[in-house]
Amino acid sequence: MKFIERLLTAQRKNDSLVCVGLDSDLAKLPKAVSATAEGQFEFNRRIIDATKGDVCAYKPNMAFYEEAGLKGWAALEKTINYIKDTAPDVVVILDAKRGDIGNTAQAYAKACWALGAHCVTLNPYLGIDSLEPFLKDETKGAFVLCRTSNASGRELQDLDVITPLGPTKLYMHVAKLAMTWGKAGNLGLVVGATMPSELKDVRALVGNEVPILIPGVGAQGGSLEMAVRSGVNGQGLLAIINSSREIIFKDPGPEFDKKAGESARELRTAINRFR
Amino acid sequence: MKFIERLLTAQRKNDSLVCVGLDSDLAKLPKAVSATAEGQFEFNRRIIDATKGDVCAYKPNMAFYEEAGLKGWAALEKTINYIKDTAPDVVVILDAKRGDIGNTAQAYAKACWALGAHCVTLNPYLGIDSLEPFLKDETKGAFVLCRTSNASGRELQDLDVITPLGPTKLYMHVAKLAMTWGKAGNLGLVVGATMPSELKDVRALVGNEVPILIPGVGAQGGSLEMAVRSGVNGQGLLAIINSSREIIFKDPGPEFDKKAGESARELRTAINRFR
Repeated sequence: MKFIERLLTAQRKNDSLVCVGLDSDLAKLPKAVSATAEGQFEFNRRIIDATKGDVCAYKPNMAFYEEAGLKGWAALEKTINYIKDTAPDVVVILDAKRGDIGNTAQAYAKACWALGAHCVTLNPYLGIDSLEPFLKDETKGAFVLCRTSNASGRELQDLDVITPLGPTKLYMHVAKLAMTWGKAGNLGLVVGATMPSELKDVRALVGNEVPILIPGVGAQGGSLEMAVRSGVNGQGLLAIINSSREIIFKDPGPEFDKKAGESARELRTAINRFR
Repeated sequence: MKFIERLLTAQRKNDSLVCVGLDSDLAKLPKAVSATAEGQFEFNRRIIDATKGDVCAYKPNMAFYEEAGLKGWAALEKTINYIKDTAPDVVVILDAKRGDIGNTAQAYAKACWALGAHCVTLNPYLGIDSLEPFLKDETKGAFVLCRTSNASGRELQDLDVITPLGPTKLYMHVAKLAMTWGKAGNLGLVVGATMPSELKDVRALVGNEVPILIPGVGAQGGSLEMAVRSGVNGQGLLAIINSSREIIFKDPGPEFDKKAGESARELRTAINRFR
């Protein structure tokens, strides 16, 4: 199945644009699980069981697994396998933010696909060489960082750049380049919920066929209504609204999974009101 | 020891600006070692033994270890430990090219330092938030991608940008930002040897105190003389000239390490002629 079809199927089947970010920071795990890589997998397993009917995607961020070294890498692998076994329709977005020259990007792509991910996040600073190895397989996808949700994202991304087509912002130029880079239809963009007007401009530019991954609602403070209305395509689809800490760490108690499930359902309902 | 002092000590002690890139791609390992993560470590060990007196740094690229999954991660860890045990004056540059928002960058920094690296490579697209966690410890360093050696590096990096100080190229703006980002003196830049005039401009801008990591001589075709003359500071130091495939894969035969040692020595001598 082509990547874009997999994503649309997931969004339609669970009637959900919600992505749960599995930023399962060891230091923040509830006391009910151990603060080890084994506890990290146990935590993820319970979060996945509680939320899998209300999401279109899970997004484990590699940093929080690499932090635990070898055992963390194993916990990440187990987590992805668990998602694919118990929620086979849900998309696995590996938040890798990789970017390297051609032969090296090829090795990163092999690493990400070997972990079982359906798609990854990538950094555009090295241009198409660094993305191509991830785009060759149409069953796999990539989301390129365009306008990120962090405060200093503007330092480079909001710069005015001069292009053959006239002046624009760097992030808008990345969105334009992505239209030429992503000929196979499996390239999406990352635009933070904290900047809804930028998100609106990017959606208007890329049209209806390009998925946009939107982190930054919840803990990072982006407005949900604006993010949804600005991010979806004409059919109310292909926006992926990510929430991490506000779902997985909502409740520090022993029933953390129950609360995570409720939060995911509430987010799904709130999003669907604005689609 | 502050990072910059560690680097200067390494360059002076071995009278060398050579960095050997341990891009130990499983598919390219000589037949004398097995094409497994164990073989990868064995290969690295022999390369390190043969070159350690002629280099200032080793630069393992994480992609080629992540590609082998869990066992690759273990091979990377063993390789870094081996360098630190047998060549304690030599700097370990972990070629990670990471870049993520604050709390996530913090987790990546912990992962990189837990592996034992003295410094890492980072991507500037997310701004200072994504670099700060790596710069807090003055004994550790970071090299930010400025102008990369790959063909499509120009797509973003060569764009004309409008800044409060007037128009410039994006990579030059990154170099300017780095001067404000790197207040602790432990921030360097990455500029490819394939673009010597850009390298010259960056060195002129950042002055004598900022280290520049220069990949792209050898397999990527950059001129050595131009790279050295353009990259060193006023004392003929703080340029780090990286060669990977042209050293480690110079000879596919059973004595690959002997040939790697000769190549590293030749590169050291050639560089020193131009300093």
